[in-house]
Amino acid sequence: MTTTLITGGTVVSATGRAAADVLVDGETIRAVLAPGSTLLGTDVAASVDRVIDATGKYVIPGGIDAHTHMQLPFGGTEASDTFETGTRAAAHGGTTSIIDFAVQTYGQRIEDGLAAWHEKAGGNCAIDYGFHQIVGDVNADSLAAMRRLPDEGISSFKLFMAYPGVFYSDDAQILKAMQVSRDTGLMTMMHAENGPAIDVLAQQLVDAGNTDPYYHGIARAWEMEEEATHRAIMLAKLTGAPLYVVHVSAKQAVEQLAWARDKGQNVFGETCPQYLYLSLEDQLGASSDEWGAFEGAKWVCSTPLRSREEGHQHSMWQALRTNDLQMVSTDHCPFCMKDQKELGLGDFRKIPNGIGSIEHRMDLMYQGVVTGEITLERWVELTSTTPARMFGLYGRKGVIQPGADADIVVYDPNGHTSIGYGEGKKHHMNMDHSAWEGYEIDGKVDTVLSRGKVIVEGDRYLGAKGDGKYLKRGLSQYLI
Amino acid sequence: MTTTLITGGTVVSATGRAAADVLVDGETIRAVLAPGSTLLGTDVAASVDRVIDATGKYVIPGGIDAHTHMQLPFGGTEASDTFETGTRAAAHGGTTSIIDFAVQTYGQRIEDGLAAWHEKAGGNCAIDYGFHQIVGDVNADSLAAMRRLPDEGISSFKLFMAYPGVFYSDDAQILKAMQVSRDTGLMTMMHAENGPAIDVLAQQLVDAGNTDPYYHGIARAWEMEEEATHRAIMLAKLTGAPLYVVHVSAKQAVEQLAWARDKGQNVFGETCPQYLYLSLEDQLGASSDEWGAFEGAKWVCSTPLRSREEGHQHSMWQALRTNDLQMVSTDHCPFCMKDQKELGLGDFRKIPNGIGSIEHRMDLMYQGVVTGEITLERWVELTSTTPARMFGLYGRKGVIQPGADADIVVYDPNGHTSIGYGEGKKHHMNMDHSAWEGYEIDGKVDTVLSRGKVIVEGDRYLGAKGDGKYLKRGLSQYLI
Amino acid sequence: MTTTLITGGTVVSATGRAAADVLVDGETIRAVLAPGSTLLGTDVAASVDRVIDATGKYVIPGGIDAHTHMQLPFGGTEASDTFETGTRAAAHGGTTSIIDFAVQTYGQRIEDGLAAWHEKAGGNCAIDYGFHQIVGDVNADSLAAMRRLPDEGISSFKLFMAYPGVFYSDDAQILKAMQVSRDTGLMTMMHAENGPAIDVLAQQLVDAGNTDPYYHGIARAWEMEEEATHRAIMLAKLTGAPLYVVHVSAKQAVEQLAWARDKGQNVFGETCPQYLYLSLEDQLGASSDEWGAFEGAKWVCSTPLRSREEGHQHSMWQALRTNDLQMVSTDHCPFCMKDQKELGLGDFRKIPNGIGSIEHRMDLMYQGVVTGEITLERWVELTSTTPARMFGLYGRKGVIQPGADADIVVYDPNGHTSIGYGEGKKHHMNMDHSAWEGYEIDGKVDTVLSRGKVIVEGDRYLGAKGDGKYLKRGLSQYLI
Amino acid sequence: MTTTLITGGTVVSATGRAAADVLVDGETIRAVLAPGSTLLGTDVAASVDRVIDATGKYVIPGGIDAHTHMQLPFGGTEASDTFETGTRAAAHGGTTSIIDFAVQTYGQRIEDGLAAWHEKAGGNCAIDYGFHQIVGDVNADSLAAMRRLPDEGISSFKLFMAYPGVFYSDDAQILKAMQVSRDTGLMTMMHAENGPAIDVLAQQLVDAGNTDPYYHGIARAWEMEEEATHRAIMLAKLTGAPLYVVHVSAKQAVEQLAWARDKGQNVFGETCPQYLYLSLEDQLGASSDEWGAFEGAKWVCSTPLRSREEGHQHSMWQALRTNDLQMVSTDHCPFCMKDQKELGLGDFRKIPNGIGSIEHRMDLMYQGVVTGEITLERWVELTSTTPARMFGLYGRKGVIQPGADADIVVYDPNGHTSIGYGEGKKHHMNMDHSAWEGYEIDGKVDTVLSRGKVIVEGDRYLGAKGDGKYLKRGLSQYLI
Repeated sequence: MTTTLITGGTVVSATGRAAADVLVDGETIRAVLAPGSTLLGTDVAASVDRVIDATGKYVIPGGIDAHTHMQLPFGGTEASDTFETGTRAAAHGGTTSIIDFAVQTYGQRIEDGLAAWHEKAGGNCAIDYGFHQIVGDVNADSLAAMRRLPDEGISSFKLFMAYPGVFYSDDAQILKAMQVSRDTGLMTMMHAENGPAIDVLAQQLVDAGNTDPYYHGIARAWEMEEEATHRAIMLAKLTGAPLYVVHVSAKQAVEQLAWARDKGQNVFGETCPQYLYLSLEDQLGASSDEWGAFEGAKWVCSTPLRSREEGHQHSMWQALRTNDLQMVSTDHCPFCMKDQKELGLGDFRKIPNGIGSIEHRMDLMYQGVVTGEITLERWVELTSTTPARMFGLYGRKGVIQPGADADIVVYDPNGHTSIGYGEGKKHHMNMDHSAWEGYEIDGKVDTVLSRGKVIVEGDRYLGAKGDGKYLKRGLSQYLI
Repeated sequence: MTTTLITGGTVVSATGRAAADVLVDGETIRAVLAPGSTLLGTDVAASVDRVIDATGKYVIPGGIDAHTHMQLPFGGTEASDTFETGTRAAAHGGTTSIIDFAVQTYGQRIEDGLAAWHEKAGGNCAIDYGFHQIVGDVNADSLAAMRRLPDEGISSFKLFMAYPGVFYSDDAQILKAMQVSRDTGLMTMMHAENGPAIDVLAQQLVDAGNTDPYYHGIARAWEMEEEATHRAIMLAKLTGAPLYVVHVSAKQAVEQLAWARDKGQNVFGETCPQYLYLSLEDQLGASSDEWGAFEGAKWVCSTPLRSREEGHQHSMWQALRTNDLQMVSTDHCPFCMKDQKELGLGDFRKIPNGIGSIEHRMDLMYQGVVTGEITLERWVELTSTTPARMFGLYGRKGVIQPGADADIVVYDPNGHTSIGYGEGKKHHMNMDHSAWEGYEIDGKVDTVLSRGKVIVEGDRYLGAKGDGKYLKRGLSQYLI
Repeated sequence: MTTTLITGGTVVSATGRAAADVLVDGETIRAVLAPGSTLLGTDVAASVDRVIDATGKYVIPGGIDAHTHMQLPFGGTEASDTFETGTRAAAHGGTTSIIDFAVQTYGQRIEDGLAAWHEKAGGNCAIDYGFHQIVGDVNADSLAAMRRLPDEGISSFKLFMAYPGVFYSDDAQILKAMQVSRDTGLMTMMHAENGPAIDVLAQQLVDAGNTDPYYHGIARAWEMEEEATHRAIMLAKLTGAPLYVVHVSAKQAVEQLAWARDKGQNVFGETCPQYLYLSLEDQLGASSDEWGAFEGAKWVCSTPLRSREEGHQHSMWQALRTNDLQMVSTDHCPFCMKDQKELGLGDFRKIPNGIGSIEHRMDLMYQGVVTGEITLERWVELTSTTPARMFGLYGRKGVIQPGADADIVVYDPNGHTSIGYGEGKKHHMNMDHSAWEGYEIDGKVDTVLSRGKVIVEGDRYLGAKGDGKYLKRGLSQYLI
Repeated sequence: MTTTLITGGTVVSATGRAAADVLVDGETIRAVLAPGSTLLGTDVAASVDRVIDATGKYVIPGGIDAHTHMQLPFGGTEASDTFETGTRAAAHGGTTSIIDFAVQTYGQRIEDGLAAWHEKAGGNCAIDYGFHQIVGDVNADSLAAMRRLPDEGISSFKLFMAYPGVFYSDDAQILKAMQVSRDTGLMTMMHAENGPAIDVLAQQLVDAGNTDPYYHGIARAWEMEEEATHRAIMLAKLTGAPLYVVHVSAKQAVEQLAWARDKGQNVFGETCPQYLYLSLEDQLGASSDEWGAFEGAKWVCSTPLRSREEGHQHSMWQALRTNDLQMVSTDHCPFCMKDQKELGLGDFRKIPNGIGSIEHRMDLMYQGVVTGEITLERWVELTSTTPARMFGLYGRKGVIQPGADADIVVYDPNGHTSIGYGEGKKHHMNMDHSAWEGYEIDGKVDTVLSRGKVIVEGDRYLGAKGDGKYLKRGLSQYLI
């Protein structure tokens, strides 16, 4: 097996940093060493197959993006990144594991949905991948199947309080599923928006001729995110289920999460880069020669962008600092403007929901370190360590320690990254535009190792389709 | 230099655990290694001077007790543990660093107070020690001296809202000191009880003939802890100072801390084992042949024990889980019943305040792991990692990583510890009784290394007076 | 027209009391006078047709019970009080107005439901009556009909978040109805319990063989009342509708109401005597020779009785003091044990829900004055003045002032009332038992006038079927 | 005795309104009558000495200003309104009772302070007056004297958490005084600002050359009002004293009051017109030819004006609607710019604190009715009914009912009032400027009766010095 020494860097963990070398042996980390020429008489650098010089750079556990949707069928089309293109873009961005969502649609068996997703992903991924299970039809059969998910390496399932007629679960269904969650330890993940109410508002807006992308955010009022978040919390309290709320964007939803945490509940939340950086005002102002006001469609996602004037973005950053939000994922769900987003011309409800961010999460969050929003340690914790703990991967992933998979990113704080679709900019996702056009990052992904293999070096991709393996996950290691 | 390999154990950190060996070289950790006979061709175990077998045991960073008072003059007497006896007892209990409090008394210069404490501790300690600075007289001179404390390796100072006429600072003084805290990064530590109000209540109780130790807790009502906590928070908000509230015991005080955290303030709190296990009802019921109801004097400390019926103990454990309290210290301040506690016979106000717990903190908190109150990782975080981060020791202390001081405890989950004063029980503190008589722990401190030297092996003390060195501390590494 | 002088009493209002005489002329109050033999030279007492001596007694506006269900079809049977028997019992208890609920069932037109209730009540009532409109089927037609309700003298409608398949509205329906509420000023009344979730719990309890009446309260967990209350609040916030939550019983639901009030929302709540006096523990302990544990069926109502140990009753009284709850109604919905409640033998879900209290509300609340829970003024405010203001009757009802309907109760604080079904006890409702057996009241309804006519004198009923007229109500006079 | 009939108006109370005539007989109200030519055969209008036509106007209980400081010695000068000039201005503004503050200064006996104030006020007032007692020196003697205050008709005392060295009480003193409050029922009134902390900030601002009036508001940060409010609440909770916080201006202080109310405490708060209308931004922008930036001195009061951008004014109005604040007083404490305010040229700390508003309170609050901030009923409740109830005057004052003092204001909603110092504007206070220059009111005080005597008719003052009598007050009638 190949041995590699990453030397001279600063190893950063969730709690601190150390000047240390990392010795990789094959796919895993063999040792973390104090810098120095010899160890028990052995010249370490001279004894390894390869030395990566990380001098002046951060050595961090590879990013884990716990919320992605590769090639997801949605709104009559399909997310534009395949597992191949999406995970390759992830690798470029310093993310070495994803947890995507296998989908059980209405009327379907969970086993069949899961099998279909294994089919899509198997042999195609650049990095390791796991699955959460979307349960789109809670019934006696699926409830029984859920109890068998841990055997499949799946320790979390997702329900939707939004999207009536598609993925929607009513409160009776949620209650039953959460009872399974309590019994098995499966984490309940929740899309917390009051779909029935939102759909009324959306219909009324369209009826009144308010069809632009901006009205997507008006229809999906923060009150209905706050409400659903509270409802999910109370159902979790009633049942004793652990709860993880996805893509939190409203400050009032965070207040509900903090309220539940203060009472000792196992309630968690993630936010996404779009809710930290982008705003409803940005979307209102979006315009282009090609698309006019429909340009804002590129930022149509659910939950929606929120008003900056109301302070949501500020609150998201604050909640990341105080651990009222524990993680940052992307909800990566890319659609092209052409043929996809444009399905919603004249009716914002028909715009496929989603933003492509998987490639930029590590960079965008690092920029939060640069601007002082979060600490370097918190960056690692939010993007890798807590995702691993939350979803049962810690030990293999999420930490640089002996025995762990050698998923390692060397990140250069003196580098620079220009994000965008055009020439000379970083963009490897399968999209015809970038939602992050013009974002400049004062740092750069330098080298990326996945299970000991260097898959990205500078801007070059050295990996291959199928490098990534399926991750059987254990139960959450983050519960209190 | 001596090399040691701790092998076969489970290394536990604040975020998780790993099967790993720890290689110690001299005073520091050289490497953390995946188990295995050879490393790059070298037989590690055969190459070291000493092998410690940790099979089936936990390998954790040595405990850090951030709140102790060795030989503190108080109430006409002096805490009964010297730096020598107290730190030796600490070592027996798996604690390898303390942060004690140097005292500036009223009218004294800070420099002189600090020098006096260096005098007391220097050459006498079994383990490494640092100082917080008690500022008992905030004035122009001491405010200037505080700004020089970082140069002395002191990154925190403590004020008292209690004890008028002794250590008490009024709000004007607190405000000025907190401005220094904001400017310098020094952590403001606060004894948060409304002393002037409490003293009125105490006087009234004594006047009414209610002089037993129990009334100490009645006088020090939770309302006055809650109030002072809120006041400290608001003064910290006004100034921008980071705040650390010591010995939190009231659930309502925790609610205030959580409230401030939810708003994004750098506000922290510790609790102590006595507030987790002991109660006001216990104190009311305390009685002995020798002392009668005065037996309760052994549990007179400030803040006082709280009512179990009101649920304070439950709330303290919960807050430790939710990180609304970040640390567990002891507030170790031992007094003998004879000649010391008995000064308060007939007037609870004259009972020297304090409980001796330094030896038992790691065990008592481990028992919380056994009973399911906290996780194993949280145990390490609360007792070592966060104390190190909070008070600027992380990297050297609080973590098992290359380059760190080899302060390591091998803890045996299959061992057993009986705490108490009598024969066959564990008790090395200089006291004529134990506040923890009869507590049984389903675990045991097995081996303790301090900077690479084995100072405790089983029940034997192998160290020497003066092993411990002064710790120059940096600024807090825990701020958000 | 007959003139009456009520003399010598203490007139009590929501804000205070006065020694004053009340001059009634025909159906209305002509004047409120300072006591004294002559007024502008006229001997008042000598000039009137009748003098009622209220010396030593309270003179208060007649009680208004804003939540009753006479002869309501429910669970395959019908509430056992007709408008005739129920309103006569009300009169005996010092209540001179009710607001009952006209019902639109699923598939029915609102107009037809309302007409049916006019049919039931017309010509049968002992006291004046109005209607709220239950909307059991929110659809385009009923939404349009709701907008015409103010013309019918109906200024409030009620929705149910409970009872799926019966009265239940989903969130889309609630949202649409609340938009009408905002536009028209109609008050939205809400039964706030999460019915779909509760039905799952109830089914599981029955499946497990837990079929006794007690389990009704277990199934209807407070978490699901709290949740629905929050949801109703947020939908009201989103739309701008005024909201009135009926029969609040959980302290956590009160916390939600207080939270919304503190933010300035027009959100209100009522509780009922059963939630102030009775408890889940009482129900668990209920047993009789005839019915065994099924005796508890007499207290099956929704929301259910709550645990005293958890402190709900204490919180209800407190909320009445702090005006976090604004009113006390009865939710009068009586069923006999025989033939009615016993439908649920073997399955608590089939027990008709409801308690008969209309006769005892004024007495039971007065007892709260005796025990110091509320003030005398608050008694009048909770039972008469605020109900009048809340539901658009103030000026005619709810106050003793010139021009108001002469609905007046002379209440004797030196009298005594024994409540119960048997001989020598007060009970005029059409039930075969009393839910209030054994309650003793240190006060007594002395004389009751309805629009100037004495309908109750001591224990004698002097009125006649049809005395009561329909009340066309205006919009709420309580909004902020 | 003279009889008067006020006819044709709308009588407004705290709960509603009625078309009613008011018959005054001598000093008190004899009857409230439904409009109509005859009563029991008597032609009322023809039988009285005088008829006041209130057609189209509101008939309300005379305003009660519960917070005034006539001729208060402060900062080396004295408030510029004497009891004579101040109460005459009050009368012009529709206020018929004041409660001023008798002062016990440091070292003085309460009896002597009170006697001095009786001396100042006796025989000089245009309207009735009562006293609260300022306790500026809590000691054994004054604590004993406080227990005798109810016999003097004084049912409330005021303490200061601000102004160290002047009126300041420390927490021990507050605690002792509150114990008297609990025992006697005396209301504890509190100036809730952390004086010691504020004085430090003020000194630092002056030291830095920031001496303009604006910095008065910077020094008196809202954090220190919030803190003191919380502290007062907790001391009240500890002792069981009822608490009334004066001149609340910070929204965070209101949050504390609401928090305490939600927990059932007898905690109340008033705000003043300046905190509803004026802002710190206004003060920063204030400038005049004569005074330059020192013009802002006219608005120097404590608590200070607050930032509009931070939303304090909005919160004050909201709290008045939700009853989290119960009253509006003026804290009338006028000083002229010349010779008085100008004492603080070059040092804002030397500006006498206070604004003159006694004449305009009823008008300014009525304007809140016009703009929709409060209802007409709430206007009466905030300015008259609740002040009467809160401070033990209800029945005599604060309500239009038989037996009450005939303190009545006829207010014309079709009138107009221009407030200001110059020609043609309303201003009768003894000041050389108006703090309310340019305020326009869509209403007008038409006629004012004090104990049956018309003292103001249109703009003419018909009363005389000494009309007003001392009010012996009872205990609060507002406690829950």
